[in-house]
Amino acid sequence: MLVLITIYLCGLVAIAAALHFTRQVMKVEVVGEKPLRIAAAIEEGAMAFLSQEYRYVGIFALLFALLIAVTVPHGLHTAISFLVGAFISSVCAFLGMKIAVKGNVRTAMQAQVGLHAAFRVALHSGAVMGFGLTGLAVLGLVTTALIFNLFYDDALQVMEIVSGFGLGGSTVALFGRVGGGIYTKAADVGADLVGKVEAGIPEDDPRNPAVIADNVGDNVGDIAGMGADLFGSCAEATCAAMVIGASVAALAQNLSTIYYPILITAVGIPVCLFTLLMFAKVAKQATSVEPTLKNQLLLSTIIMSVVVTVITKLVFVEFPLGDQIVTPNGVLVALLSGLWAGLLIGVVTEYYTSHAYKPVREVAASSQTGAATNIIYGLSLGYKSAVLPVVATAVAIYLAWTLAGMYGVAIAAIGMISTIAIGLTIDAYGPVSDNAGGIAEMCELGEEVRNRTDTLDAAGNTTAAIGKGFAIGSAVLTALALFGAFLTIAKVDALDLLQPLVFAGLLVGGVLPFLFTAQTMRAVGEAAYAMIEEVRRQFRQVPDILTGKAQPDYRRCVGIATQAAIKLMVAPGLLVMLTPLIFGSLFGMEALAGLLAGSLVSGLVLAISASNSGGGWDNAKKYIEAGAHGGKGTDAHKAAVVGDTVGDPFKDTSGPSLNILMKLMAITSLVFAPALIKAHAFVLSLLP
Amino acid sequence: MLVLITIYLCGLVAIAAALHFTRQVMKVEVVGEKPLRIAAAIEEGAMAFLSQEYRYVGIFALLFALLIAVTVPHGLHTAISFLVGAFISSVCAFLGMKIAVKGNVRTAMQAQVGLHAAFRVALHSGAVMGFGLTGLAVLGLVTTALIFNLFYDDALQVMEIVSGFGLGGSTVALFGRVGGGIYTKAADVGADLVGKVEAGIPEDDPRNPAVIADNVGDNVGDIAGMGADLFGSCAEATCAAMVIGASVAALAQNLSTIYYPILITAVGIPVCLFTLLMFAKVAKQATSVEPTLKNQLLLSTIIMSVVVTVITKLVFVEFPLGDQIVTPNGVLVALLSGLWAGLLIGVVTEYYTSHAYKPVREVAASSQTGAATNIIYGLSLGYKSAVLPVVATAVAIYLAWTLAGMYGVAIAAIGMISTIAIGLTIDAYGPVSDNAGGIAEMCELGEEVRNRTDTLDAAGNTTAAIGKGFAIGSAVLTALALFGAFLTIAKVDALDLLQPLVFAGLLVGGVLPFLFTAQTMRAVGEAAYAMIEEVRRQFRQVPDILTGKAQPDYRRCVGIATQAAIKLMVAPGLLVMLTPLIFGSLFGMEALAGLLAGSLVSGLVLAISASNSGGGWDNAKKYIEAGAHGGKGTDAHKAAVVGDTVGDPFKDTSGPSLNILMKLMAITSLVFAPALIKAHAFVLSLLP
Repeated sequence: MLVLITIYLCGLVAIAAALHFTRQVMKVEVVGEKPLRIAAAIEEGAMAFLSQEYRYVGIFALLFALLIAVTVPHGLHTAISFLVGAFISSVCAFLGMKIAVKGNVRTAMQAQVGLHAAFRVALHSGAVMGFGLTGLAVLGLVTTALIFNLFYDDALQVMEIVSGFGLGGSTVALFGRVGGGIYTKAADVGADLVGKVEAGIPEDDPRNPAVIADNVGDNVGDIAGMGADLFGSCAEATCAAMVIGASVAALAQNLSTIYYPILITAVGIPVCLFTLLMFAKVAKQATSVEPTLKNQLLLSTIIMSVVVTVITKLVFVEFPLGDQIVTPNGVLVALLSGLWAGLLIGVVTEYYTSHAYKPVREVAASSQTGAATNIIYGLSLGYKSAVLPVVATAVAIYLAWTLAGMYGVAIAAIGMISTIAIGLTIDAYGPVSDNAGGIAEMCELGEEVRNRTDTLDAAGNTTAAIGKGFAIGSAVLTALALFGAFLTIAKVDALDLLQPLVFAGLLVGGVLPFLFTAQTMRAVGEAAYAMIEEVRRQFRQVPDILTGKAQPDYRRCVGIATQAAIKLMVAPGLLVMLTPLIFGSLFGMEALAGLLAGSLVSGLVLAISASNSGGGWDNAKKYIEAGAHGGKGTDAHKAAVVGDTVGDPFKDTSGPSLNILMKLMAITSLVFAPALIKAHAFVLSLLP
Repeated sequence: MLVLITIYLCGLVAIAAALHFTRQVMKVEVVGEKPLRIAAAIEEGAMAFLSQEYRYVGIFALLFALLIAVTVPHGLHTAISFLVGAFISSVCAFLGMKIAVKGNVRTAMQAQVGLHAAFRVALHSGAVMGFGLTGLAVLGLVTTALIFNLFYDDALQVMEIVSGFGLGGSTVALFGRVGGGIYTKAADVGADLVGKVEAGIPEDDPRNPAVIADNVGDNVGDIAGMGADLFGSCAEATCAAMVIGASVAALAQNLSTIYYPILITAVGIPVCLFTLLMFAKVAKQATSVEPTLKNQLLLSTIIMSVVVTVITKLVFVEFPLGDQIVTPNGVLVALLSGLWAGLLIGVVTEYYTSHAYKPVREVAASSQTGAATNIIYGLSLGYKSAVLPVVATAVAIYLAWTLAGMYGVAIAAIGMISTIAIGLTIDAYGPVSDNAGGIAEMCELGEEVRNRTDTLDAAGNTTAAIGKGFAIGSAVLTALALFGAFLTIAKVDALDLLQPLVFAGLLVGGVLPFLFTAQTMRAVGEAAYAMIEEVRRQFRQVPDILTGKAQPDYRRCVGIATQAAIKLMVAPGLLVMLTPLIFGSLFGMEALAGLLAGSLVSGLVLAISASNSGGGWDNAKKYIEAGAHGGKGTDAHKAAVVGDTVGDPFKDTSGPSLNILMKLMAITSLVFAPALIKAHAFVLSLLP
C-alpha cells in the first residue's frame, strides 16, 4: 500500500513541478510587436500541425482499437486501455508543444537580460515536458492497472490488458516519429530550397510560407516525437516487467513487488527534480552551458543509483521465475546496469558526434577532397560508433538476464529510462533554444543576444545527440523486454535457433530495418517535393508575399507537409504493424520470435549508426563553418553541406523511427499473441 | 568407386577444357608495336602485384599453419591440408590473372575482325579461369580426402582435416577480396585524381605511372578476388557437407553418398562445358552480347537441374541424421532450391542495378536535385534490393534444412555454386573486355573497334553485378553450412536464443559486419592517398615522364598500392580471424554460435545492399552519360559522379569482402572448435 501511495505522490509531484515550471516560463513578458507576431505564427502553425495529425491519429487509433476489441481476449478492456495510452501520449505531446512555442519567444526575450536568464527559461520549458510526461505516464499506468484489477482475479490478465496502454503510447509514437520525422525534414528542405536558393530571401524570413512549418518541424521531431518515443519506452518497459512478473502466481499477491517497476520510474521524479533544482544553474559570467546540462545527466544517474539501491532493498521480495530465483540483489544489478549503460551510450555518442573529438574532425578533413569522401567517412563514423553501444547493451542484457531472467531485462530498460524526466527536459530544451535563436534573428534583437542564443543552441545540439543514443538504447532494451513478455504469453520457453523456421525468421527480421529505412528516407524526399511545389505556388499566385505586403499562407504549408508526411508514413507504418500479425499467423510463434530477434539485431546497429552519422555530418559542417579548412564558401564546406543533407533524414527520420519499429513490432506481437496463436492453428488446419 | 572415377574424369575434363581454351586464346596473334608494349606493361604490373601479394600470403599462411599445427588435434595433417588449399587457390588466381592479361590484348585484336570474334576470345579467356579453377578445386578436394583416408579409420577425422583445405582457400580469398579490393580502388582513384585532374592527361594514358596499377586492379578484384571467393565457397560448402555427413557413422562406409557433394560440383563441369560449347555463340550481325551471356546462366541452371535429378536418384542412399532421415528426394529439393535461389538473386540484382529498369533511373533522376538526393536514393535502392534475395535465401534455407537438416543447407550451397564454371567464366569475361577497351583506346584502333569492345564491356557490367549477387548468396549458404558443421563438431545440438550469452553473442555478431565495412571503406581512402603521393613524386622527380621521353615506374606504383593495401587489410583481417578465437575461448561455443548467427543476419543484408547500391550508382552515372537529364557536364552528372565514387568502395571492396567475413569466421570456428573448447574450459577453470 505504501508503494502505491509513493507512486501516486511522486506522480503528483511531477504534475506540480510541471505546473510550477509552466508558471516560471509564462511569467516572462513578451515585449514588442514583432516578437509577438512571430511567436503567434509559430504557435498557430504548431497547432495546425497537431490538429491535422491528431485527426489521423484518432481515426487510426479507433480502427485499431476495434481490431483489438474483436480479436484479443478481454478485447474490450484491452481496447480501452489502448485508447487511454494513446490519449495520454497525445496529451503529453500537445502540452509539450504548447509550452515549447511559448518558451522559445520568452527565451529570446530573456537572452536580452543574460545567458543565465535565457538558460533558465529554455530549461524550464523543457522541464514542463519532462516532468509532465513522466508524471502522466506513471499515474496513467498505475491507475489503469488498479482499475482493471477490480474486474479480474488473475494478475496476468490485468497486465495483458495494461499492455494495451503501452501499445497505445507506441502507436502515437509511430505517428510522432515517422510522420513527424518526414514532416520536419520536408519542411526544412522545402523552406531552404525555394526560399534561400530560388527566391533569394534569408533563412528564417517570415515572408517564406514554409518558414513556420520549418520552425514547427523542429518541435515536432525533438519534442512531440521524442516525447512519444520515450513515453512509449517507459510505458512498455513497465508493462513488460509487470507481465513477466505477473506470470508468477506467487508474485501476484505481493503488491510491493508487482508494482516495483512503476515505483522505480516514480522515484526517478523526485530525484530528477532535486538534481534540476539544486544543480541546474549557470553563473552570470558563464560562457557555456554545456557542462551544466551534461552534469545533470551524470548527477541524476549517481543519485538515482543510491536511491534505487535503498528502495530495492526495502520493498523487493525475491520470487521464483522459471528455474531461477529473482533476488533483490539480482534486480538491483539489472537496474544499475541499464542505468549506467545508458550513460555510457550517451558518452560514446558525444565522442562520435561532437566536433571536439577526432571522428567528426576526420569527417571535416575528408570534405576537402570532396563530397564523396565526406560521405564515406561519415558512413564509416556511424558504423564504427555502433560498436561500443552495442557491446554495452549486450553486457547490460547479459547481466540483467543472467541475474533476473527476462524480468531483469525489463528492469534494465526501466533503469535506463528512470532518469527520463531529466533526459526529456534536456532534450526539449534543444528546439526551444534553436527557435529562440531564429526569433532573435527575425526580430533583430542584436548580435549579443544572438550570441547568447547560439551558446544555448550549441549545447542543445550535443545533448540532442546524447538523447538520441539514450532513446535507442532504451528502445532496444524495451523491445527485448517486450519480446520476453511475448514469449511468456506465447508460452515459448526455449527458442532453438537451429529450427529452420526460427533461423529463416531471423534472416527475414534482419532485413526489415533496412527496408523500413529505405522507405522513410525516400518518403522525406517525396514530402519535400510536395512542400517545394506549394511554396512555389504561393510565390507565383501572390507576388505581394515577397514584397511583404501580403501574409503568406503558413497554415496551408503546414497542412500540406502534414498530409504528405501522413500519407507517406502509411507504407512504413503498415510494414511495422502488419508484419508481426501476418508472419505470426502464417508461421507460428517461434518463427515470429525469430523475426523479432532478427529485427533487433540489425535495427539496433542501423539506428545508432544512422543517428550518429547524421550527427557527425551536421557537426563536421558546423566545424567547417566555424573556420576549419577555409570555412564557409569553400569547396570543403559545400562537400560538408552534402553530408549534412544526407544526414538529416538519417538522424531525424530513419534512425529514431527504428526505435518505434523495434518496440512496436514487439508489443504488437505481445498484445495479439493469443489471437495469433489461434490464427496460426487455423492456418495449420487448412494444410493437408 | 564409380563415383570417384566420375569425379576424377570430370576434373580432368575441366583441366582439358581450360587448356583447350588457353590454346584458343593464345592462337590469336598480337600485331603492332603499341599493343605489344601496352600488353607487356599490364602483364608486368599484374605479375608485380602477384609477387608482392603472394609473399605476404605465403608468410601469413605459414604462420597460421603453425598455429593450426600446435593447437588443433591432428594439427600437422590439418596444417598440410590448409597449405594445400591455400596453394591451389593461389595457383588458380595466378593462372586466371595470367590468361586474363593475355586475353585482353587479343580481344582488342579480334575486335578488328568483328564483335563475334572478339566475344569468343574474351569468353574463352574467362573460361580458362572458370574451368581451371573448378577442376583444380574438385581434384584437390577429392585427392586430399582420399590421401588422409589412408591415415585414419574415422571418416569424421578425415573430414575435419579436409576442412583445413577450405580454410586455406578462404584465407587466400581474404587477401584477394579485402587486400585486392582496397588495392583496385586505391589505384583507380590515384590514377584518376593525379593523372586526369592534376596533370591533365587523358584516362588510360601510358604516361600515368598509376595507369597500369589501375588496369591491373580491374583484374585483381573481379578475377583473383572473385575466383578466390568462389573457390572458397566451393571448397567450404563441400567440406561442410562432408563433415556433417561423416558425423553419421553409418554413412562413413557408403562411398557414393559421402562423396556426393564433390560429385555434384564435378558433374557441373561437363554441364557447363556443354552449355558453353553449344550455346555461347554470337551471330556475325549481332549488336549485343548480353542475352547470350544471360542465357548461359539460365541454360546451365536448367540442364543442371535435370542432370542432378538423375544423379541423385542413382547414387544417393538415404541415411539418418539426428532424428530425421535424409532421403534422396529431400537432398534433391535442397540442391534445387539453392540452384534456383541463385538464379533468382541474379535476376533481382539485375533489376536493381541495370539502368534498363526503374530503380537506377530514379537514382539518375534524383541526381538533378544534387549529390545529397543521389546518395539518399542510392542507399535506399541498396537497402530495398536486399529484401527479395534475403527472402529467397531464407526460403532456400528453410526448405533445405527442413528436408535434410544442416546437411541439406550445405547441399543447397553446393547447388547454388554447382554452375560455378559458367559463373566464373562470365565473371572473368568482364575485366578482360574492360581492359580490351582500354587497350583499343590507347592503341588508337579506331571508333568501330572501340564500339565493339564497348558492347562487350556493357554486357560485362551487368553480368558482374549478377555475379556479385551470386557470390553473396552462396557465401551465406556456405557460411551457414559451415556453422552447421561447427555445431556438429562442437556438439551443440540446440542453440537456445533465450540463453543470455547466446543473445548477447547475437547482438555483438550483428555489429561486426558494420565495423568491418567501416574499416574497409576507410582503408580505401588511406590507400588511395598513398598512391596519389607516389604518382605526384614521380611526376615531380622525373619531369620527362610527362613528355613521353622517360618511362614511368609502373612497378613501384603497383608495389606501393599493394603494400598499402596489405598493410591496411591487417585490421579488418585480424577482426575476422581473431574474433571467433577470442570470443569462443572466453565465452564458449554457444556464445560463439550466437555471434556467428548475428554476423550472418546483418552481414547478408549489408553485403547485398553495398553491392547493389554501388552498382546502382555506377549505372545511374552511365545512364546520364548516355544522355539522360542533360548528359555529361551537367550538375546532374556531377552529382552522379559523387554517388559513383561512394559506390566504388561499396561494391568493389566492402560488399564482396563481407562474403569472406561470413565464411572465414565460420570455418575458423569449425577448424579450431576442438581447441576452443579446451581453451574455454581453461578460462572457466580460472574463475572462482
